Amino acid sequence: MIKLNENYLKLPGSYLFSTIAKKVSEFSQNNPDKKIIRLGIGDVTQPLCPAVISALHSAVDEMANADTFKGYAPDLGYEFLRKAMAENDFRSRGCDIADDEIFISDGAKSDSANIQEIFSADSKIAVCDPVYPVYVDSNVMAGRTGDYDTTSEVWSNVIYMPCLADNNFAPELPKETPDLIYLCFPNNPTGATITKSELQKWVDYANKNGAVIIYDAAYEAYISEDDVPHSIYECEGARTCAIELRSFSKNAGFTGLRLGATIIPHDLKTKDGVEVHKLWARRHGTKYNGAPYIVQKAGEACYSAEGKAQLKEQVAYYMKNASYIYNGLKNAGYTVSGGVNSPYIWLRTPDNMTSWEFFDYLLDKANVVGTPGSGFGPSGEHYFRLTAFGTYENTVEAVDRIAKL
Amino acid sequence: MIKLNENYLKLPGSYLFSTIAKKVSEFSQNNPDKKIIRLGIGDVTQPLCPAVISALHSAVDEMANADTFKGYAPDLGYEFLRKAMAENDFRSRGCDIADDEIFISDGAKSDSANIQEIFSADSKIAVCDPVYPVYVDSNVMAGRTGDYDTTSEVWSNVIYMPCLADNNFAPELPKETPDLIYLCFPNNPTGATITKSELQKWVDYANKNGAVIIYDAAYEAYISEDDVPHSIYECEGARTCAIELRSFSKNAGFTGLRLGATIIPHDLKTKDGVEVHKLWARRHGTKYNGAPYIVQKAGEACYSAEGKAQLKEQVAYYMKNASYIYNGLKNAGYTVSGGVNSPYIWLRTPDNMTSWEFFDYLLDKANVVGTPGSGFGPSGEHYFRLTAFGTYENTVEAVDRIAKL
Repeated sequence: MIKLNENYLKLPGSYLFSTIAKKVSEFSQNNPDKKIIRLGIGDVTQPLCPAVISALHSAVDEMANADTFKGYAPDLGYEFLRKAMAENDFRSRGCDIADDEIFISDGAKSDSANIQEIFSADSKIAVCDPVYPVYVDSNVMAGRTGDYDTTSEVWSNVIYMPCLADNNFAPELPKETPDLIYLCFPNNPTGATITKSELQKWVDYANKNGAVIIYDAAYEAYISEDDVPHSIYECEGARTCAIELRSFSKNAGFTGLRLGATIIPHDLKTKDGVEVHKLWARRHGTKYNGAPYIVQKAGEACYSAEGKAQLKEQVAYYMKNASYIYNGLKNAGYTVSGGVNSPYIWLRTPDNMTSWEFFDYLLDKANVVGTPGSGFGPSGEHYFRLTAFGTYENTVEAVDRIAKL
Repeated sequence: MIKLNENYLKLPGSYLFSTIAKKVSEFSQNNPDKKIIRLGIGDVTQPLCPAVISALHSAVDEMANADTFKGYAPDLGYEFLRKAMAENDFRSRGCDIADDEIFISDGAKSDSANIQEIFSADSKIAVCDPVYPVYVDSNVMAGRTGDYDTTSEVWSNVIYMPCLADNNFAPELPKETPDLIYLCFPNNPTGATITKSELQKWVDYANKNGAVIIYDAAYEAYISEDDVPHSIYECEGARTCAIELRSFSKNAGFTGLRLGATIIPHDLKTKDGVEVHKLWARRHGTKYNGAPYIVQKAGEACYSAEGKAQLKEQVAYYMKNASYIYNGLKNAGYTVSGGVNSPYIWLRTPDNMTSWEFFDYLLDKANVVGTPGSGFGPSGEHYFRLTAFGTYENTVEAVDRIAKL
């Protein structure tokens, strides 16, 4: 008999960004004359930088020649990329991470969805609320989250850590001890950050309670202030309690190229001494076949002197947008946060509108697409996310349209 | 407390091809003067064809320009590729498959490992024995396979369908009814094929018993004989019982580029009318972020007139190797099969050697790497797989070395 994974059927509605895409497409069909500006999904608009383009072309040429052609990639990723990451993203910041503790993948979305699989089915998860939906949905699919209450919009077996204005959008240590703690800083969706000493408290908590922190550092390139850690391994003791997720999507515009990495230190072990690293390696070897060679070469180019300089400019371009959104909306009377160490601006909806009401209002009146805060969890209700990933011209126009409403 | 997925710990040893890679690397270090020829892992050696290379370069150029830059791909893959596949691989063969029944992915390995996830945890699987290890291992990780008996090397809760010389390496309908049936034709590892009327029996059996067939068609490009189906959808009734997996790795040399597809017809439903398609779409939307645009453009190029002609030549190149291996070993007194509609040659080990004994013997005496049949399941014991994916020169040398032993 065809028996489905019933946990899938518990999921309310479709994936957030698929729903938005559908709504926008409908609006667009009904209003073909309107120029829609998309500041919703966190997708970049700037082309790949010249250093990356040049690396791609030359890697493609290698694939055209029998002597330099590359077939299956090594299980964990090419040594050249793991080394470049380990040196530039970790060791140069004083983080003790070895090349072989880095697993190259097709992106932080897949990794953040798959990482739960190597943990026990009865592991209890804790998430920030609001939160990137993939953390929760992937655990729903795995049957860890209990039942969904359609009124409160929470899962019965998930520890929610509310991030609201009164705690500066930073979670507090949970009372009930979780097995897995998902943290993302700079945060998606709120754009909030965490200081090194605050993050140290989480590392100490996890080590004390035997919890694993899954630390999503996808937005670290946007950090502009000192004392905001770029990696959890800047904290003492993180090697025994933390997994870190890295992405090339936002710092290098790889959303359509797909490249990421997961870091699992060998010191992360069960009390019986089994390395978590070993299970993830087994998963990679069995259920994945490596990121394309040409994309891994593109990733390597991000660490060349030329690539670094070009990407710095690209990040600055988006941060100029972030600043324009932040200031423009603030001046227009909105309550806004984020946007300083992050490409995301988090705003309070006006007139106590629900997040989806404001979504429809903005789409209809200003033809601007954003992301409803409630799509990220119940504490996101009455909030709204705008991204700085548009072009400067579109960003200015969108903010000016909103300000005029 | 750090609690791992205990199912992972049940897996004996490492992934087959990781073990082989390790053994070969050790031999190579101890014997730096020996020229090792690798006919083990099914990895291709011919460069990407000119049509694909040209598509890659022009797609890279698109990524360099803001007007043509592509970010996140559509959830299910780009329309241009789904259409090209649906038309060329299915509709042109009389298979009724719509564009939106095709899900583009990063390869058949990931898809064949992940597909089990959308089915119930208590689904019982049936596999050919020997079999591509990913089907079983991914179900072990999901906890479906019961316990492993180290003596018989079988899992207590898996239905094995032995494929041996006396049944022409073709499975027989199982007595106990499975929920999920994995079939792969042309077969990996045996190189055996199935006729359309034989496959029709499986489709009828699945429809009658409410089972789902997961049909791996990764090697269909190597079919040279008539009456061997290229797709399970050539059989009547397959739309209500079959999922098909497609790969670009073997027909177009994409092992290092990563591209594949899973086909799920809308007619594949539970008795309550829930479409299996819907769950896989949810998985794609939640846990995956699309194959790279440039790789999807490379995939499209495989369906151009130029691309088709070039790939036909590439397949012919490998099939010339297959023929040389088949005839060379047969003339040297080996019992061989496969190699006619498949790039794999399956041979009986001489002198009743175990598969791993023959692996070591061949590596040591002829410096040739193959794959031990027992690595694919207990019925693979005393068999050995050689692939036709080497260069012609290496293939000839390897066969001549083996023949002289």
